Amino acid sequence: MAQKLKLGMIGLGKMGYNLTLNLLEHGHSVVANDVNEQAVKELAEKGAVPALRIEELVQKLETPRIVWVMVPAGNITDSVIKQLVDLLSPGDIIIEGGNSHYKDSLSRAETCKAKGIHFFDCGTSGGMEGARHGGCFMIGGDKEVWPTIEPLFQDLAVEQGYLYTGESGSGHFLKMVHNGIEYGMMQAIAEGFEVLDKSRFDYDYEAVARVFGHGSVIRGWLIELTERAFAKDPKLESIKGVMQSSGEGKWTVEEALDLQANVPVIALSLLMRYRSLESDTFHGKVVAALRNEFGGHAVVKAD
Amino acid sequence: MAQKLKLGMIGLGKMGYNLTLNLLEHGHSVVANDVNEQAVKELAEKGAVPALRIEELVQKLETPRIVWVMVPAGNITDSVIKQLVDLLSPGDIIIEGGNSHYKDSLSRAETCKAKGIHFFDCGTSGGMEGARHGGCFMIGGDKEVWPTIEPLFQDLAVEQGYLYTGESGSGHFLKMVHNGIEYGMMQAIAEGFEVLDKSRFDYDYEAVARVFGHGSVIRGWLIELTERAFAKDPKLESIKGVMQSSGEGKWTVEEALDLQANVPVIALSLLMRYRSLESDTFHGKVVAALRNEFGGHAVVKAD
Amino acid sequence: MAQKLKLGMIGLGKMGYNLTLNLLEHGHSVVANDVNEQAVKELAEKGAVPALRIEELVQKLETPRIVWVMVPAGNITDSVIKQLVDLLSPGDIIIEGGNSHYKDSLSRAETCKAKGIHFFDCGTSGGMEGARHGGCFMIGGDKEVWPTIEPLFQDLAVEQGYLYTGESGSGHFLKMVHNGIEYGMMQAIAEGFEVLDKSRFDYDYEAVARVFGHGSVIRGWLIELTERAFAKDPKLESIKGVMQSSGEGKWTVEEALDLQANVPVIALSLLMRYRSLESDTFHGKVVAALRNEFGGHAVVKAD
Amino acid sequence: MAQKLKLGMIGLGKMGYNLTLNLLEHGHSVVANDVNEQAVKELAEKGAVPALRIEELVQKLETPRIVWVMVPAGNITDSVIKQLVDLLSPGDIIIEGGNSHYKDSLSRAETCKAKGIHFFDCGTSGGMEGARHGGCFMIGGDKEVWPTIEPLFQDLAVEQGYLYTGESGSGHFLKMVHNGIEYGMMQAIAEGFEVLDKSRFDYDYEAVARVFGHGSVIRGWLIELTERAFAKDPKLESIKGVMQSSGEGKWTVEEALDLQANVPVIALSLLMRYRSLESDTFHGKVVAALRNEFGGHAVVKAD
Repeated sequence: MAQKLKLGMIGLGKMGYNLTLNLLEHGHSVVANDVNEQAVKELAEKGAVPALRIEELVQKLETPRIVWVMVPAGNITDSVIKQLVDLLSPGDIIIEGGNSHYKDSLSRAETCKAKGIHFFDCGTSGGMEGARHGGCFMIGGDKEVWPTIEPLFQDLAVEQGYLYTGESGSGHFLKMVHNGIEYGMMQAIAEGFEVLDKSRFDYDYEAVARVFGHGSVIRGWLIELTERAFAKDPKLESIKGVMQSSGEGKWTVEEALDLQANVPVIALSLLMRYRSLESDTFHGKVVAALRNEFGGHAVVKAD
Repeated sequence: MAQKLKLGMIGLGKMGYNLTLNLLEHGHSVVANDVNEQAVKELAEKGAVPALRIEELVQKLETPRIVWVMVPAGNITDSVIKQLVDLLSPGDIIIEGGNSHYKDSLSRAETCKAKGIHFFDCGTSGGMEGARHGGCFMIGGDKEVWPTIEPLFQDLAVEQGYLYTGESGSGHFLKMVHNGIEYGMMQAIAEGFEVLDKSRFDYDYEAVARVFGHGSVIRGWLIELTERAFAKDPKLESIKGVMQSSGEGKWTVEEALDLQANVPVIALSLLMRYRSLESDTFHGKVVAALRNEFGGHAVVKAD
Repeated sequence: MAQKLKLGMIGLGKMGYNLTLNLLEHGHSVVANDVNEQAVKELAEKGAVPALRIEELVQKLETPRIVWVMVPAGNITDSVIKQLVDLLSPGDIIIEGGNSHYKDSLSRAETCKAKGIHFFDCGTSGGMEGARHGGCFMIGGDKEVWPTIEPLFQDLAVEQGYLYTGESGSGHFLKMVHNGIEYGMMQAIAEGFEVLDKSRFDYDYEAVARVFGHGSVIRGWLIELTERAFAKDPKLESIKGVMQSSGEGKWTVEEALDLQANVPVIALSLLMRYRSLESDTFHGKVVAALRNEFGGHAVVKAD
Repeated sequence: MAQKLKLGMIGLGKMGYNLTLNLLEHGHSVVANDVNEQAVKELAEKGAVPALRIEELVQKLETPRIVWVMVPAGNITDSVIKQLVDLLSPGDIIIEGGNSHYKDSLSRAETCKAKGIHFFDCGTSGGMEGARHGGCFMIGGDKEVWPTIEPLFQDLAVEQGYLYTGESGSGHFLKMVHNGIEYGMMQAIAEGFEVLDKSRFDYDYEAVARVFGHGSVIRGWLIELTERAFAKDPKLESIKGVMQSSGEGKWTVEEALDLQANVPVIALSLLMRYRSLESDTFHGKVVAALRNEFGGHAVVKAD
């Protein structure tokens, strides 16, 4: 059985909230903090030690402290890390579990190192369900310190669902690539259903996703989720095909360009998402206008 | 000076009408036929010999007859060729100038050959302006007979603007590839303007197209047409970005797949055209639904 | 428990051989035929009824006969179906389980129908392992007759791993789309590992695939197979990146073009496969030559 | 006739050398500087005022000085600008004509502005020929000062071949987009010839490029250059299809990702260039290994 630890959790949103519940259930002791007091209160009722301010959270931990930061990526992460660097002591440990760019993790690791604090960048996959009942974790940072925090992941992850990935940055880099693959896979699945939808045949998409999910080459969680989605709305008539994105697909493509790596599928998956945000395009107008100029082809007038 | 010939022209639409005017101006004698009597009448007033029926057109030519078929591609071309094969004599010549698939040209050439009729497949580029004032022609067919019809192209084409491309089918194949390239070029230009349109800068697109058209690496007719289009409508606000297509881009991609040739740019140009025909997509719905399933990401509700 | 049937199996290659073993183990009676006598002999030793000729196979079945055709797609399938149509009686059933184009299945269904024979097109996924131990089956054909053959699939498929997909052609169409999705997914995974391979980090790819396979969003069989492949050859140094293809990806793209469906990811997956078959490209030469022409940029000389 | 000016030219490489000759021929007075003394000497013989050091160049100009910087983009540009900012006086003018990223131009303009120096970012197209005999220029910077330097462009550019594009950065941004379009156009042309090369027909590529260049829709300078390249080497057998790139295509794609603009064709043109740099790929190995795992498909062994 994994060793039981005490740690702080900063950020009790969709992911941090579920991770905390998961940790508590496995017997770890969690000091929970969020700007949203309601979330802190709820988790206190479920066994967490409440901390309304970060200072309080730090005080309620013993050295060497372990603090898991699970706040929305970007500025807020920076500000929380900065606060922690001031409050923590040499030998303490920060686990940054957000969807951060690996280059930010590299610089945060540097900042922490200068104060003797150990920084781990932890990529998290598996969605809210994974956070709650067993997810997938990829963790980069100081190899010597890794065994100290490994027990957390033995409990949080599904079996074989965590990996110490090497030096700082390698955890978030791997998570970024995971999401790049995810973009490509999702677009591939979606294109398949688009072909079905335009075909002469009249398929039951839920049943199709179910059969795809059982015994086929493409079976996996995304196919299971496809089945679930069609179970709720057989033709997805209630939603629009607007495909938002939260950054990691873009980062993957940008990184690939820097590395001169070939990622046509990931790149196109991203571009199709951008395309879906617009109901009309300027590039389309240019092509339509050109066809009209050289061939007299009719254009569709704007309303 | 090119030798002056007598020929029949079947099909007096946008292209055939202008070709006929062009031929007449250059001193050729043209027997003009179309199902649209008005077009026949107009061209008769401009010096053509009118023929309200194909039989009449054939009768008004002397052997070896030359008949240029310039009707909308597809079934109509087949039906006209079939009629001509019945009416013409061995040694007569058919020039098929439409946007036909090269495989259709191959089979039409076979049919004609069986009756001793010489068939030329002629790809025509340059738009209506080219047909009227000097275009670009790529002609495949019997090498020995080519000199007989070459004088027509010496007059119809701009200088160096025609090519005997070799055996039957090679003219339409080359025209198909020309159009594939055209798809890619148009999309490239359009993407550039899309980037400008979304940029922080406030460009005058007509002026941009003009400067692109003078001295730059990308200068050429499509850039000139881009300038023209923006001169009429500076932001193309009057039209929608709906990009129709008339088949040759698709044929190019299909052919490339058969040849295992790499055409990512032409393929994507075509797919973006298809995308532009839809205001929403099923693949977008699938991706949006999946993001909601695993990450709880919000979806945009259908109206 | 599923009803036990007697059927003929024509074609004892990688797939048919394993399907036969699977059927035998589940208590069905199989008359096995192949041009390869050795395979027939082997399966006879394992409980199948041997049939060295198709006539013999037909004779050894009772009406209404069920014959599963599992030969390499294309001409051989046509020839076997033609033989069967001559030999079988009205009311008999053919299950065609190869990787056939759905349009071929449509025409084969017509041919069979004219003779009163019921034709089912059956798409099979899951690879050799699936055939042997439980695969995924998508079956199109006559709805009234479907219950007669369903017991076979209850035993051959993993749980929930078969689907009656509707009218003739719909089984192979769905399998085609499955494979199109598969192309996109595989390319997405492969691109991810390419980015890892070019990155500054030093990942253990087998461990990466394993963690991706446990709890992540992209977990699934293809990720498991990736782990297996890296387990055998940690950097895949023993093989070349030559990506063959066997047709269904191409069919999916061709079908999508006909349907004007958007499949950039599937299309690019296919084009990258074609690209991998060449060590140098003509399009590359043209671009290199153009760069040299306008900018004096150096070219790489051929050996 | 355009007013004649005196200016300094720093950087006498392929582009700066030809621009200097062009300016001298048009009656402008040029103080020429380069680290390569030979180039300075040559141009002195052709009428330029030599300056072996930048200080000397600055001294030989009268206020308000005009200095054209035409050095390889990147660090060298930065260092030259930095030197100039120290040496020049308020009211002096810098024209930066290299292939610089527009964001660098924005920050250089800021640096210059702080010292009262006017900075113009000038995108230059048309290749070496354009620099020598009339090119295409897109210039961003201070609108009030623009008329001072416009006479240079009246002489350097082909007719209508220059444009004041607006505020700082807009010149290099437009040039970046121009090059993005160029990538797409070149790839489109190249793909067309790849299809021809794999076709059943036996085309004369020089003749094809020539006919494409006369009267067709795709006619333009790139097609003319294609003709020239095939004139020198009919099948391009002497070169490899290695497609280098010098940054602006990548910048266009990166910028497009930031702007969520759709650039599939430009992106793929870039990715195909990267692909061409490798004789084998890791993504190819992964796909090949996966096909082997699930289907037993043969792999090609590494040498």
